[in-house]
Amino acid sequence: MDLKSYIVELNAKIESTLDKLLPPKTQYPGMLYDSMRYSLFAGGKRLRPVLTLATVEALGGNLEAALPVAATLEMIHTYSLIHDDLPCMDDDDLRRGQPTNHKVYGEATALLAGDALLTHAFQVLGTVQTGITSDIMLRIVGELAKAAGAVGMVAGQMADMENEGKQANAETLAFIHANKTGALLTASVRIGALFAGASEEQLQALTTYAQRIGLAFQIQDDILDVVGETAKLGKAVGADAAHAKSTYPVLYGLEESRDMVRRLTDEAHQALQASDLAAVRLHEIADWLVSRDN
Amino acid sequence: MDLKSYIVELNAKIESTLDKLLPPKTQYPGMLYDSMRYSLFAGGKRLRPVLTLATVEALGGNLEAALPVAATLEMIHTYSLIHDDLPCMDDDDLRRGQPTNHKVYGEATALLAGDALLTHAFQVLGTVQTGITSDIMLRIVGELAKAAGAVGMVAGQMADMENEGKQANAETLAFIHANKTGALLTASVRIGALFAGASEEQLQALTTYAQRIGLAFQIQDDILDVVGETAKLGKAVGADAAHAKSTYPVLYGLEESRDMVRRLTDEAHQALQASDLAAVRLHEIADWLVSRDN
Repeated sequence: MDLKSYIVELNAKIESTLDKLLPPKTQYPGMLYDSMRYSLFAGGKRLRPVLTLATVEALGGNLEAALPVAATLEMIHTYSLIHDDLPCMDDDDLRRGQPTNHKVYGEATALLAGDALLTHAFQVLGTVQTGITSDIMLRIVGELAKAAGAVGMVAGQMADMENEGKQANAETLAFIHANKTGALLTASVRIGALFAGASEEQLQALTTYAQRIGLAFQIQDDILDVVGETAKLGKAVGADAAHAKSTYPVLYGLEESRDMVRRLTDEAHQALQASDLAAVRLHEIADWLVSRDN
Repeated sequence: MDLKSYIVELNAKIESTLDKLLPPKTQYPGMLYDSMRYSLFAGGKRLRPVLTLATVEALGGNLEAALPVAATLEMIHTYSLIHDDLPCMDDDDLRRGQPTNHKVYGEATALLAGDALLTHAFQVLGTVQTGITSDIMLRIVGELAKAAGAVGMVAGQMADMENEGKQANAETLAFIHANKTGALLTASVRIGALFAGASEEQLQALTTYAQRIGLAFQIQDDILDVVGETAKLGKAVGADAAHAKSTYPVLYGLEESRDMVRRLTDEAHQALQASDLAAVRLHEIADWLVSRDN
């Protein structure tokens, strides 16, 4: 099976799991559950749960049993998108071509749907029976909360906001990327590793893998922004760069950024090879993330 | 020691615990941590962690070890206040006479501070060492998330919002009270009970106690609203009631509401007596909640 079919197959499992884990639309107050489901089932690559499940598989763990745990990563990611789109944040009307949550349900409901999705992730982890020990599940709770919270994703979001319209330096840019997107991507892999009983050495290797692809993914995003803009606006990259918000191409130039993506992806592959894992899908995902053109 | 001194003493311990559990203000991005701390240290009765700790004590558990767990109840309560005060929700400028979080830090930071406090509660539960088993700590994670989330506090908030300006019926009003405030108050007691190793029978009795005082507390709030208004406006209660939002006095009348508070408080006392607990403080708290005049 090629990677694309593999991801399609996993996504079907992930969506059916999410459907079972959420309160039904018919339960009172239904609009809250409608609103949670609207954003949760709005499509997307489901990269985070896919990473969790591919990691479980690489370690010979039980993929089916891991589904509810993997689904919590998508709940957290979706809550962050709903809150990011709110008028007081990025004020976006559209996401993937569809009206954002607050455009459909109103700001108050969107705020509550985000709060509820965030909380629901921990309700699932605290109550689901998956066959792993409470020691490990509790460690997963800590991993997820740390990656999502005050010293993870929310810190990255805050730093990004504080640096809007400013020319952030390399250190600040690295902090934003490592936290705003990197922390949850890394947690996706680490949680799969913990679930499947990885050794500390394997966990370290997988953490390196995840950190490298997380940053490569983000730099690739930055590159696509620049390349896309150049094509669209028909003007030189350098001219944009002077006014654009801080990105890797702005700070390091386009060629050096492309080199960084290549180096990071190589390091991700090396980390997997050194740890002696049957991690074909993880290798494929690393290549896919940086070869995509959207 | 009288109850007031007992609560003052507990509050000092709770605040010092919260201070230790939060990232320091000096850590980057500092404004996020400032904003979290601003609302967390804005005063208040700290009723939820006090209930947790008094329950631990009633069962002979280790009060000092329970402090970080009790503190998570206050993080959840504070996040809910920050989000409730936002312009898209109740749009409040003041809380306890001080500017609300978003008036000081802006809406985006207030939103993120709420998100971070909610997430931090689970980070603490997932990582803190308190001497209890992972089985029990994981059950506490589930209790807290369920009480705070999509079938608990957030559902109550949503139902309250949907019924604004309407005359809710008895069933809807009971749903709102049981979820918006009742769920987290009940969880405060149940989490203390789980922490201290309560038997299932004791857990049941304490749950009944918490549900009764939670509802009595809310009805007493409704009564104080009416009585306060009557005194202030100098007009009959009935005249207000016709236009007021749904409350127990509106639905049942003032005298019947007062009877309900008395009955619920009696039932709370009885639940404790039947379970043979040394629960002096819990008895005192039940009486205090309904005798207060603010």
